[in-house]
Amino acid sequence: MSSTYGKLFKISTFGESHGQAVGVVVDGCPAGIPFDAEFIQSELDRRKPGQSRITTQRREADEFQVVSGVFEGKTTGTPIAMLVWNGDQRSKDYSHIAQQFRPSHADFTYQAKYGVRDYRGGGRSSARETVARVAAGALAKLVLKNIGIDIKAYVSQVGKLKLEKSYQELNLALAEENAVRCPDPALAQEMFDYIDETRKKGDSIGGIVDCVVTGTPVGLGEPVFDKLHAELGKAMLSINAVKGFEYGSGFAGVEMYGSEHNDEFFIEDEQVKTKSNHSGGIQGGISNGADIYFRTAFKPVATIMQDQASVDQEGNTVTVSGKGRHDPCVVPRAVPIVEAMAALVLVDFYLRNRATQGLAYEQEEKLEF
Amino acid sequence: MSSTYGKLFKISTFGESHGQAVGVVVDGCPAGIPFDAEFIQSELDRRKPGQSRITTQRREADEFQVVSGVFEGKTTGTPIAMLVWNGDQRSKDYSHIAQQFRPSHADFTYQAKYGVRDYRGGGRSSARETVARVAAGALAKLVLKNIGIDIKAYVSQVGKLKLEKSYQELNLALAEENAVRCPDPALAQEMFDYIDETRKKGDSIGGIVDCVVTGTPVGLGEPVFDKLHAELGKAMLSINAVKGFEYGSGFAGVEMYGSEHNDEFFIEDEQVKTKSNHSGGIQGGISNGADIYFRTAFKPVATIMQDQASVDQEGNTVTVSGKGRHDPCVVPRAVPIVEAMAALVLVDFYLRNRATQGLAYEQEEKLEF
Amino acid sequence: MSSTYGKLFKISTFGESHGQAVGVVVDGCPAGIPFDAEFIQSELDRRKPGQSRITTQRREADEFQVVSGVFEGKTTGTPIAMLVWNGDQRSKDYSHIAQQFRPSHADFTYQAKYGVRDYRGGGRSSARETVARVAAGALAKLVLKNIGIDIKAYVSQVGKLKLEKSYQELNLALAEENAVRCPDPALAQEMFDYIDETRKKGDSIGGIVDCVVTGTPVGLGEPVFDKLHAELGKAMLSINAVKGFEYGSGFAGVEMYGSEHNDEFFIEDEQVKTKSNHSGGIQGGISNGADIYFRTAFKPVATIMQDQASVDQEGNTVTVSGKGRHDPCVVPRAVPIVEAMAALVLVDFYLRNRATQGLAYEQEEKLEF
Amino acid sequence: MSSTYGKLFKISTFGESHGQAVGVVVDGCPAGIPFDAEFIQSELDRRKPGQSRITTQRREADEFQVVSGVFEGKTTGTPIAMLVWNGDQRSKDYSHIAQQFRPSHADFTYQAKYGVRDYRGGGRSSARETVARVAAGALAKLVLKNIGIDIKAYVSQVGKLKLEKSYQELNLALAEENAVRCPDPALAQEMFDYIDETRKKGDSIGGIVDCVVTGTPVGLGEPVFDKLHAELGKAMLSINAVKGFEYGSGFAGVEMYGSEHNDEFFIEDEQVKTKSNHSGGIQGGISNGADIYFRTAFKPVATIMQDQASVDQEGNTVTVSGKGRHDPCVVPRAVPIVEAMAALVLVDFYLRNRATQGLAYEQEEKLEF
Repeated sequence: MSSTYGKLFKISTFGESHGQAVGVVVDGCPAGIPFDAEFIQSELDRRKPGQSRITTQRREADEFQVVSGVFEGKTTGTPIAMLVWNGDQRSKDYSHIAQQFRPSHADFTYQAKYGVRDYRGGGRSSARETVARVAAGALAKLVLKNIGIDIKAYVSQVGKLKLEKSYQELNLALAEENAVRCPDPALAQEMFDYIDETRKKGDSIGGIVDCVVTGTPVGLGEPVFDKLHAELGKAMLSINAVKGFEYGSGFAGVEMYGSEHNDEFFIEDEQVKTKSNHSGGIQGGISNGADIYFRTAFKPVATIMQDQASVDQEGNTVTVSGKGRHDPCVVPRAVPIVEAMAALVLVDFYLRNRATQGLAYEQEEKLEF
Repeated sequence: MSSTYGKLFKISTFGESHGQAVGVVVDGCPAGIPFDAEFIQSELDRRKPGQSRITTQRREADEFQVVSGVFEGKTTGTPIAMLVWNGDQRSKDYSHIAQQFRPSHADFTYQAKYGVRDYRGGGRSSARETVARVAAGALAKLVLKNIGIDIKAYVSQVGKLKLEKSYQELNLALAEENAVRCPDPALAQEMFDYIDETRKKGDSIGGIVDCVVTGTPVGLGEPVFDKLHAELGKAMLSINAVKGFEYGSGFAGVEMYGSEHNDEFFIEDEQVKTKSNHSGGIQGGISNGADIYFRTAFKPVATIMQDQASVDQEGNTVTVSGKGRHDPCVVPRAVPIVEAMAALVLVDFYLRNRATQGLAYEQEEKLEF
Repeated sequence: MSSTYGKLFKISTFGESHGQAVGVVVDGCPAGIPFDAEFIQSELDRRKPGQSRITTQRREADEFQVVSGVFEGKTTGTPIAMLVWNGDQRSKDYSHIAQQFRPSHADFTYQAKYGVRDYRGGGRSSARETVARVAAGALAKLVLKNIGIDIKAYVSQVGKLKLEKSYQELNLALAEENAVRCPDPALAQEMFDYIDETRKKGDSIGGIVDCVVTGTPVGLGEPVFDKLHAELGKAMLSINAVKGFEYGSGFAGVEMYGSEHNDEFFIEDEQVKTKSNHSGGIQGGISNGADIYFRTAFKPVATIMQDQASVDQEGNTVTVSGKGRHDPCVVPRAVPIVEAMAALVLVDFYLRNRATQGLAYEQEEKLEF
Repeated sequence: MSSTYGKLFKISTFGESHGQAVGVVVDGCPAGIPFDAEFIQSELDRRKPGQSRITTQRREADEFQVVSGVFEGKTTGTPIAMLVWNGDQRSKDYSHIAQQFRPSHADFTYQAKYGVRDYRGGGRSSARETVARVAAGALAKLVLKNIGIDIKAYVSQVGKLKLEKSYQELNLALAEENAVRCPDPALAQEMFDYIDETRKKGDSIGGIVDCVVTGTPVGLGEPVFDKLHAELGKAMLSINAVKGFEYGSGFAGVEMYGSEHNDEFFIEDEQVKTKSNHSGGIQGGISNGADIYFRTAFKPVATIMQDQASVDQEGNTVTVSGKGRHDPCVVPRAVPIVEAMAALVLVDFYLRNRATQGLAYEQEEKLEF
């Protein structure tokens, strides 16, 4: 129940970090979508470990296999199952952590909730689960492409290093040209060095991912509980290590007056537009056609290569010693995950909208100028 | 579909701002809960308009009527419908706004999405809908009381006026003793004056509501998509005027090292506890027994008493002139709404947990020291 | 949770038989549908008690009130709440049944499940709950009317009295011209007399309602679990007193050979049609454009005016003595309920279909001859 | 969306008849359940093809692989993915049926709904999908075993050959000792011969599967829409080739008087019991502790080895000639599928019940004698 997301474009993920495979079943993908396997693989490659010195050195090819729902190169409207087999299942000795609760990990809460847990590499609580999200999100992107929706995320902060420019002032395409995925090359280098230094200390550091969605038609999202930004928020907060979410003016908007914050309407090219965009493209929970933008805060990951005090399942005080591979800063690899989750939110609302919108409109009720 | 919330403690709200009534149906409330109507009314009173000079002067008694699901003073396990009739339906002249799109309101997006809208007082997009949430949330609180969960929200920021103390340093009970609902009486007075001044200018200002949940058992929340904080985030972001959400260390946590941020475990009173609480009481999406705390950012509300440029449904440029009643700052009245939504999230996870937790535990697997 | 039905056209019903009101919230009704209140009332009138000597003499006007979601005569896309106040709440003495479990009623199971029950007139287990379904179903019919779907139910059996003709051989419009709602006037009179006789004995008798849906486009229903007939079956079985459901050839189809049962295809008017219709208009769970037909079996209702042996909550042996008003045979009043539930199923699948169907079709893939 | 079943014990199936694999993800299985792989395999073996001369000769070992959610022999509370690879994917020539619509198959409806279909062996509309249900149902049975619920189905009719005895008069264990799965050995032999004869004619024949559930506690099922029998009905009707469902007295109950049909209560062993069981163990949609029994009608399968008239995608009249492997009568292999679906329904209601039942009961409200 907890591994299922979406109302109409519904995904169900499964698989543990060091189990046999991670995978996803997508139920509700429209029929007739060209299944671009190469694109899906390229999205997985953006997320995969070992991309540079500042990401975990776990070796996973992360090649996906599609098991169902695709025929003669197109989706058939039936469930699409995708699997990524875990190549790197070395038969490790986990006895040192099997009984211990690593600080700020999910070890303790899983043990308490379930009475049992797969302690190998964090099991299901590992961010390895997000492989499945990226695969499903790539499929969602293929659907969204048809209608011109484009999603672009990038790193805007690492520790105290902040990108001060807004997305309009940047060439976002540059983000994919460096290991940090920050569209300002000079700052990207600084961030890289800082992360690398943190890595050498065996420590970790947090960061922020910004995301911009362009080409959204007016009308996506639902009033009241399933507001577009509420669902985006939930989707982002469901990603491992996320601590906060804001859209449009966000937390900074708190300090503004309504007379400054309100986005005045005007007409351009026979379309209703807004002079400013503090709304972040969403008004009353529904997209207004302007760019959607939001920011997601990631904490420093809990896995560090330093000794920490903790307890074990018997209640003994223990020292947890980090070993192995870890990401000193998750945001570079989080970029495609943020995009994937955004795509899943948007495609779901797009389909929900199709279900009812325009069903009973008379011509004269449409917004036409 | 969009006015329904919850998986097991499911609520369905209805009603427009200037329609006949707003109400809610709660489906899934356990049987045998003493239905404390007085408490529910007192929660509605905390939200109702006209509480002081700094809230809207709309006159609504907001007295609720329970229509079903309660028998001989107890819930019966069947749907509980609660109604609040709209007393203040003056037959106003709405012609001045019927065709106009007020900046940063939902007028334009509703019109575009539905081809029709109830323009009287914002219809369904009005925060008046939250009456229904507060009634349902009060019922949720009654269920949570049984298991010792307590939820307390308060105002921590208005415009640039910030409460610098953490919740542990404050007497939260003081929050309810002033009109702003800030637990620092001196700062509360400053905030009051500032809001009042803003009101006189016909403007509005944003703010932040903090919330603390104590007494949560270990194990609430679900891994992966339905993480406790993801659902809390969605719930908060679904409240009108909310722009951001963070829990635990939040956005500030981004700048910390993992070695600072990690919450080390220790044993006290035969329970696993954490030395610090950057996790905000939630690890891996699941409550760890520590206090849960989170912050919700509200923008300045869009309704202001100043002239603004806009367009109408025919595409003409118009001037929107604010009139009537408005809240210059929503956070004082948002406090009970934040609590209500938190209660709805927690009761739902509590019931979900009961469904499976402990079903197959053997004695030796329990965490006992 | 259990009083909610539908995925996109979602209804939530509430209210007890002798409580203040019964009602329904419809969430997901498309915007712009002309809200024909007169039609909805006429559907409620078909269900209401006291229509003739053979239905319960409970006096209820069953006039409905719409509380939200309708503006200037049209649906707005927001939740539509409809209420029917219970006029006939005489302050009766229920002490004789408060502790007793009436045979084949839900008294015992409710008490065991909830530990408490509203014993007045069966509370929530009463068929009075179906008032809410008929109101929501009438709204669904208004949506379906737009696309030419028509639903017509009628009584085909009362006790051993069977209508031997198929629906094609009958003038279904005649059903509404007699109190039994059987389209064969002579048989209807026999049924009437038989029910009346049963009533005089203080007994009850079962019956069957047939239903025919015409005008359904090809493609409604979903493969695998949410097959069109599976959902119709669930909907019918959720009506009080229903014991069985069959569609197309039904139970009789068991005795046929495949070579007899298969519906051969042919082309007529550039459409794919079937020579026979043992499939009942549904193949692989999806409508094929032919008439949908199904049959629903109702048991004799449990309320009878005779003494029966039973037990009470303390485990004492007691005699339950029927008094008051009852329907000796439910099928005449069940006809509009069957139609309402069918409408709710169909409108939901229609909206689900709109969400994805045709999204990515290329012209050449369409079925055109 | 359409391949997902269950609210708390949620399954998502995938895979085409002649694709790479069929599989299922179970999300919501409680933690700590011993994962008895041997039992799950034995259930799949009961369903697999080639068991005798009267079932299809398709050769599939149907060995399942568990991919996630199990650790050290126990379920972990995380999603359990199970796969059965399709061994028998001969690269056949499907060109003869690729364009044709086989009578009473889902070919036409899938093509019309999706604009594309996997025509190899029926793709997703094939009963091969039920492999996934049986695997998930076996897991559900493992959960139910803990609480003493036992499910036993058997064949009660093939064509006109009917088992006249009720389940109480039979030794149900005998059902598994013959190829037909009828617990009356002599009748089973007659049925076998009749099916075999039908097979030789290249034809098919229908049948009925009865199912008995013992050991159900009082209180499973929900009032109103999610009645226990409504959900059982949906589950059965979702199985391929099913045309009807009845429980308890079923269609025959229509002809009874209430005074005959009502099940009078009495006390035995300090429990409330019923003298008769026309209710089929369910009153008001909720289990009353008596045996649950229901019957499911299967049509003759559409695949026959005879020439039939039909049309193709271009609208040409064609002759469809059956070839290959088919089940002349599905009921013997449907027995484990009926049981699996019943197990999925019951485990879901069991978990739903745990969520709220007994939460607020005071001692004196319990039913104790």
